[in-house]
Amino acid sequence: MRLSTTFVKTSRTAPKDETARGAQYLSRAGYVYKELAGIYDYLPLGLRVLDNIKGIIREELNKIGCQEVLLTTLQNPELWQKTDRWDPSKVDIWFKTELAAGGELGLAPTHEEPITNLMRSFITSYKDLPVAAYQFQTKFRNELRAKSGIMRTREFLMKDLYSFAATESDHNRFYHQVEQTYKAIYNRLGVGADTFQTFASGGVFSKYSHEFQTLTDVGEDTIYFNADKSVVLNEEVLNDEVLQDLGVKREELQSARAAEVGNIFTLGSKYSNPLGLLFTDQDGQRKDVIMGCYGIGVSRVMGVIAEKFSDDKGLVWPENIAPYKYYLIGIGERGTEVAEKLYRGNEDIVLLDDRDARPGEKFADSDLLGIPYRLVISDKTLADDTIEVTNRRDGQTTLQKINDFVLSKA
Amino acid sequence: MRLSTTFVKTSRTAPKDETARGAQYLSRAGYVYKELAGIYDYLPLGLRVLDNIKGIIREELNKIGCQEVLLTTLQNPELWQKTDRWDPSKVDIWFKTELAAGGELGLAPTHEEPITNLMRSFITSYKDLPVAAYQFQTKFRNELRAKSGIMRTREFLMKDLYSFAATESDHNRFYHQVEQTYKAIYNRLGVGADTFQTFASGGVFSKYSHEFQTLTDVGEDTIYFNADKSVVLNEEVLNDEVLQDLGVKREELQSARAAEVGNIFTLGSKYSNPLGLLFTDQDGQRKDVIMGCYGIGVSRVMGVIAEKFSDDKGLVWPENIAPYKYYLIGIGERGTEVAEKLYRGNEDIVLLDDRDARPGEKFADSDLLGIPYRLVISDKTLADDTIEVTNRRDGQTTLQKINDFVLSKA
Repeated sequence: MRLSTTFVKTSRTAPKDETARGAQYLSRAGYVYKELAGIYDYLPLGLRVLDNIKGIIREELNKIGCQEVLLTTLQNPELWQKTDRWDPSKVDIWFKTELAAGGELGLAPTHEEPITNLMRSFITSYKDLPVAAYQFQTKFRNELRAKSGIMRTREFLMKDLYSFAATESDHNRFYHQVEQTYKAIYNRLGVGADTFQTFASGGVFSKYSHEFQTLTDVGEDTIYFNADKSVVLNEEVLNDEVLQDLGVKREELQSARAAEVGNIFTLGSKYSNPLGLLFTDQDGQRKDVIMGCYGIGVSRVMGVIAEKFSDDKGLVWPENIAPYKYYLIGIGERGTEVAEKLYRGNEDIVLLDDRDARPGEKFADSDLLGIPYRLVISDKTLADDTIEVTNRRDGQTTLQKINDFVLSKA
Repeated sequence: MRLSTTFVKTSRTAPKDETARGAQYLSRAGYVYKELAGIYDYLPLGLRVLDNIKGIIREELNKIGCQEVLLTTLQNPELWQKTDRWDPSKVDIWFKTELAAGGELGLAPTHEEPITNLMRSFITSYKDLPVAAYQFQTKFRNELRAKSGIMRTREFLMKDLYSFAATESDHNRFYHQVEQTYKAIYNRLGVGADTFQTFASGGVFSKYSHEFQTLTDVGEDTIYFNADKSVVLNEEVLNDEVLQDLGVKREELQSARAAEVGNIFTLGSKYSNPLGLLFTDQDGQRKDVIMGCYGIGVSRVMGVIAEKFSDDKGLVWPENIAPYKYYLIGIGERGTEVAEKLYRGNEDIVLLDDRDARPGEKFADSDLLGIPYRLVISDKTLADDTIEVTNRRDGQTTLQKINDFVLSKA
């Protein structure tokens, strides 16, 4: 993309209402625009990051046979009354609204109820199982307070996956597959090394659920871990019984701040039972379908990565999710000419800074936007037939022969 | 995709609550699932159709320099009060909700107000113009009645584009570009020949707006047209003044039923003025930005196409938006083997019916699902080294030499 063609401009001043560094940069760099507290627009470059994250998640889920659907925002109270999650004393983050034709509706904060009900039309026999379906959907949560930019918002993009199995062992097999898939996803997102599968409280149907927690100072959670024993647990389950279960002593644990970037739950028959999602087993018996659910907050992950990978100059996107891989600056008449030539055919991976601006401004925006590689072509570099390549992460600059230089998509 | 792996099953009986044929098929074929009146889920094949439509629209809009964004569902009343579109006596299709922290919010039925306000952060000078930004967003309209399946719903996917210009002539130039782009889009969607740009009422800032109307018996509109004079107008503007403007007599017009599949409006300063979106012109004067808006109801278009292209056996998707291009059936042991071989590497364009079902059932589902080409490989066809290819649209069957047969992606 040519920077001259985008309507977005970067800003030198941090918004007063964002406290976290990544959130300030996302706003200053023009990735997001705050409509109201906890309610953000995604501008062109921000949307590209979001789409890159979605693309990685989609590819990995499709590999293990998950099917993509798109459920609705507007929710039928009847379904949620059956599971006792409609009443505000039970679930207090609902946004509710009224149909002009009469009757209340909710804005989905999650989708267990509608997808369980939907599956009643398609799952009748053990032969129809297992099933796994997911979506990318905007969720709504009526939080009293919103904070940390796009990390905890009232309207956010979520990937939610639901699994349906005939037996506990089938369920467990899929659950473990998702564990592996999540690890692959966080690796590709660039946070694999600092993301830990963490024991968390499980609810009614299993002793534990699992969270995926990424180490970051602005995280809302405290996790405790022991690297030698590969044990990581959330503070909320730090008690004697759990420590005994996991075979680790309190004094062997280190603590760290982390942000949740995903969670996986065994639901058992918590939703299938009240909503009547049953199947006929091989022995002719009618049984409750065994369910699991698996979430990744897509916009939240983007927020966590923005916090985690930023320095005093701006954002530092991991390559796989950066909106563009290269930030190209041509200086002087010939530099500009050669940059234009390099740009052609590479519009999808190169952000060409063709604005009428000083080089210093362009360098600063390249850093603020967090594009992985800055490329500079000037009379000076051309004198040696070179192009200057600077890695955003470590600031290392190398001069490469321009005739050998190849832009790589991967 | 292998049909054996999808959780969706087709149904032999039409849903009682859908009256239109296309809507019945969309439900029977498992493309959509009705949550509530006017509120539909998209199941895997339905989502693919929706994504194909989005893909075509996105490509064409990007060609003319439009930039994709993603605005929010939740709306700040303050902005809509400034344009007098918050009060229910002025706009009666709002869904409204309450923040737990206090204060009312709306669910966006359209996005003129927030995008006009957003642009105040980026447009200050004539140098910042023109700008065109669009999004694919779920819209919410609190219709008293919902009907015709996914053609008129309470929650729907819309492409909305907004343009910002310094002068009327700049605005008009872009408006005409969008006219051409819309024609290209409807051509690629397969409805070009039956879609007409239609004069409709314009509102305050221009005498006319334009609708794009597709001929179909289940359409909600009546259009009047004269093929020789290339004049098409909506019934709502059929009066003497308009007829004189367009140089056509009432008796020269034929009428037809049609469904609106898009609209384009000149907004002038209707939103920029009350919301304070001004720019400084070359002469130093502060002026209102001149706006236009351009909509295509993505899910609505899918519904219109489902109605328009269906016969007594089921849906008949145009190739460019069909969820898969080929429906492949292997019959008998060798037929199945060869089909499996043909399927490999073509998972993205072939729906392989590998279900344990009778051929007749598979043929019926192939028709119901509306996949453009049915491919059958059986002992009988293999005896002549052929594959049977049936065109869904005209039912024509040909036998083609299997060694020469190539699946084409385009």
